Amino acid sequence: MYDVKKIREDFPILQREVYKKPLVYLDNAATTQKPLCVLDAMREEYLNVNANVHRGVHYLSQQATDLHEAARETVRAFINARKIEEVVFTRGTTEAINLVAQTFCESQMKAGDEVLVTDMEHHSNIVPWQLQAKKMGIVVKHLPIDDKGCLVSCHDVATYITERTKLISIAHVSNVLGTINPVKDIIKLAHERGIPVLVDGAQSAPHMKIDVQDLDCDFLAFSGHKMYGPTGIGVLYGKEEWLEKLPPYQGGGEMIDKVSWEKTTFERLPFKFEAGTPDYVATHGLATAIKYMESLGMENIEAHEQELTRYCMEQMRTIPNMRLFGEAPHKDAVVSFLVGDIHHLDMGTLLDRLGIAVRTGHHCAHPLMDRLGVTGTVRASFALYNTKEEIDALVAGIRRVSAMF
Amino acid sequence: MYDVKKIREDFPILQREVYKKPLVYLDNAATTQKPLCVLDAMREEYLNVNANVHRGVHYLSQQATDLHEAARETVRAFINARKIEEVVFTRGTTEAINLVAQTFCESQMKAGDEVLVTDMEHHSNIVPWQLQAKKMGIVVKHLPIDDKGCLVSCHDVATYITERTKLISIAHVSNVLGTINPVKDIIKLAHERGIPVLVDGAQSAPHMKIDVQDLDCDFLAFSGHKMYGPTGIGVLYGKEEWLEKLPPYQGGGEMIDKVSWEKTTFERLPFKFEAGTPDYVATHGLATAIKYMESLGMENIEAHEQELTRYCMEQMRTIPNMRLFGEAPHKDAVVSFLVGDIHHLDMGTLLDRLGIAVRTGHHCAHPLMDRLGVTGTVRASFALYNTKEEIDALVAGIRRVSAMF
Repeated sequence: MYDVKKIREDFPILQREVYKKPLVYLDNAATTQKPLCVLDAMREEYLNVNANVHRGVHYLSQQATDLHEAARETVRAFINARKIEEVVFTRGTTEAINLVAQTFCESQMKAGDEVLVTDMEHHSNIVPWQLQAKKMGIVVKHLPIDDKGCLVSCHDVATYITERTKLISIAHVSNVLGTINPVKDIIKLAHERGIPVLVDGAQSAPHMKIDVQDLDCDFLAFSGHKMYGPTGIGVLYGKEEWLEKLPPYQGGGEMIDKVSWEKTTFERLPFKFEAGTPDYVATHGLATAIKYMESLGMENIEAHEQELTRYCMEQMRTIPNMRLFGEAPHKDAVVSFLVGDIHHLDMGTLLDRLGIAVRTGHHCAHPLMDRLGVTGTVRASFALYNTKEEIDALVAGIRRVSAMF
Repeated sequence: MYDVKKIREDFPILQREVYKKPLVYLDNAATTQKPLCVLDAMREEYLNVNANVHRGVHYLSQQATDLHEAARETVRAFINARKIEEVVFTRGTTEAINLVAQTFCESQMKAGDEVLVTDMEHHSNIVPWQLQAKKMGIVVKHLPIDDKGCLVSCHDVATYITERTKLISIAHVSNVLGTINPVKDIIKLAHERGIPVLVDGAQSAPHMKIDVQDLDCDFLAFSGHKMYGPTGIGVLYGKEEWLEKLPPYQGGGEMIDKVSWEKTTFERLPFKFEAGTPDYVATHGLATAIKYMESLGMENIEAHEQELTRYCMEQMRTIPNMRLFGEAPHKDAVVSFLVGDIHHLDMGTLLDRLGIAVRTGHHCAHPLMDRLGVTGTVRASFALYNTKEEIDALVAGIRRVSAMF
């Protein structure tokens, strides 16, 4: 039994008021709130264990290392990776994609080779490729979307693949439209042509069970802070054979085997990609967040959020002059909209005065905004602790704001 | 009045026991413990404010942004940078140096151009340059050190500078030897030749007042977790004129002005170098740590640690068969040693059983180990909360371990 009222007790911030109104936090695609167990785990580690990991023989260092590596195993199991060697800790999704963009392009691509993304990518899955395009002349191509915010059919993806296509990098779920892309089908189609696929899981990992072996993706990137974990930590999953092929990204401690002025050799996976002191307290926090989600059941979280999304879309359609962006049949936890000619910033600002936190603007997806023909949208995004009452408050708020214009 | 007993109350972990012995934590060059005020500040932010920064119009997002940008101002004042634009948040020292290594080499150097480091660098100030050497054929040269662990005299540095020297990158304080390098003199000498200087401040920022305008360094890198702040956050200071010249490092949200498929432009400083959601809770934690240090007074911390270092060196010299590494006249907070032919790992392991946490091994400085002719050392390193009694415990511990061999 999914008891959202009880779940909300784990998130004290949800009890606070904003402008003397109860906080209705619907900005979860930007970042989620953290359950007490995550905050407690990190504080506890700082208070009792804190020491730098991996290189120390002393007691605290070994305890801290155990927690850090246990976190890696928790992540491995969460995404069903084959091995812990395939789990690289990064600062977040953005860094994970940059890591692949730089090392893959450098080692696997030549000028004129192509990376294929989509029209609905977050900047973090566009700009890293553009930086490599500028550096080495690779080409960034993008799959179009239809007016419902869906990719053209999976088979059509094949028409965008050329002999020069070396990698497909694609959002699992759009952070603006909520569209759930058919990544498994795309991966199958890409693999038939010998092309690896990176999945940007920033907006899917918090909301559904991801099985990297079932998807068969070559890379998966996601962020801790969007899934109830702390800021500053994320994950790059990579198939071992790919991670072995790629050169190191950053240089420093942790990632080396032996350094000399003449010749430096690198550590085995996953450490080859983890230069410097890792954020070992955040990894423990992320693992605690994953266990929290698993204690509720990813299927239950998904069902709850699917119902919230369905309900929200249904209610939104009752509002006059409502323009919804993203009406894919498979969508998740994100509702983007505009009402009449009310500017998204005005709508967001006025909803805020009612205690309702939504995001406004381009959502780090300028090319998608261009495609939609808008400068921005208002976005409500849901998490495991949101309720239908909060959606009612949002809908009432939108009506009230609309009435003012 | 510097009251170390009172200060220790701010660090509850220092009261814990290890193997039923009081913890004597002397591994501060690896990471420091955190005062309660830092842990409280971060927990408080998560419990009351948490929201993604910069892009939100809602109340929490604006509060979180205010905290994050106030942290930048705190860092700016701490190092006396001219502008907040010169303060870039990174994951730590390692990432800060990698950022400069990649962007500086790409934009300012050609094959055959030289970067000058020293024989006493941490791997984080060697390997980033070696990665660029491999990619683009730059040359990494290294200044030698004498048997006391000092650089050859500052004037001799000039003899290592050639017409191809484009950057000098140098540790402010050695993490193994404790040597305080004459960076101000080296910077002056380098600037007379038109060469910029990066200072690795990982081991100096926790221990002394750094004034980047007085030093006149072009770049400064340091880590939060080594100065009582949280893991996962660090700083790159860069002179505005240099940061303006360098291309972006990672691509993604936050660092862009406008993204389109045809042309992408980048944000103004410092955001150009901060792709992705920043670790905004950690920046607030770091700022709180800086304020804590400033409340004690950097001069007082420095004087206390100088006295600990002097006392420790004096006491160590009374131990038979003691080999000290690093006997520079100006040294700080680090004492490296071996006793007779006792392996560093054995010494560290046995000291640990006595509750004394020291680090053993190569300390991420293989080339320095080669120079010293050892595979590793035992390293005791001090922080503002350490005491002479703890040094007595260390010295007694070393005597006890030595007697077993």
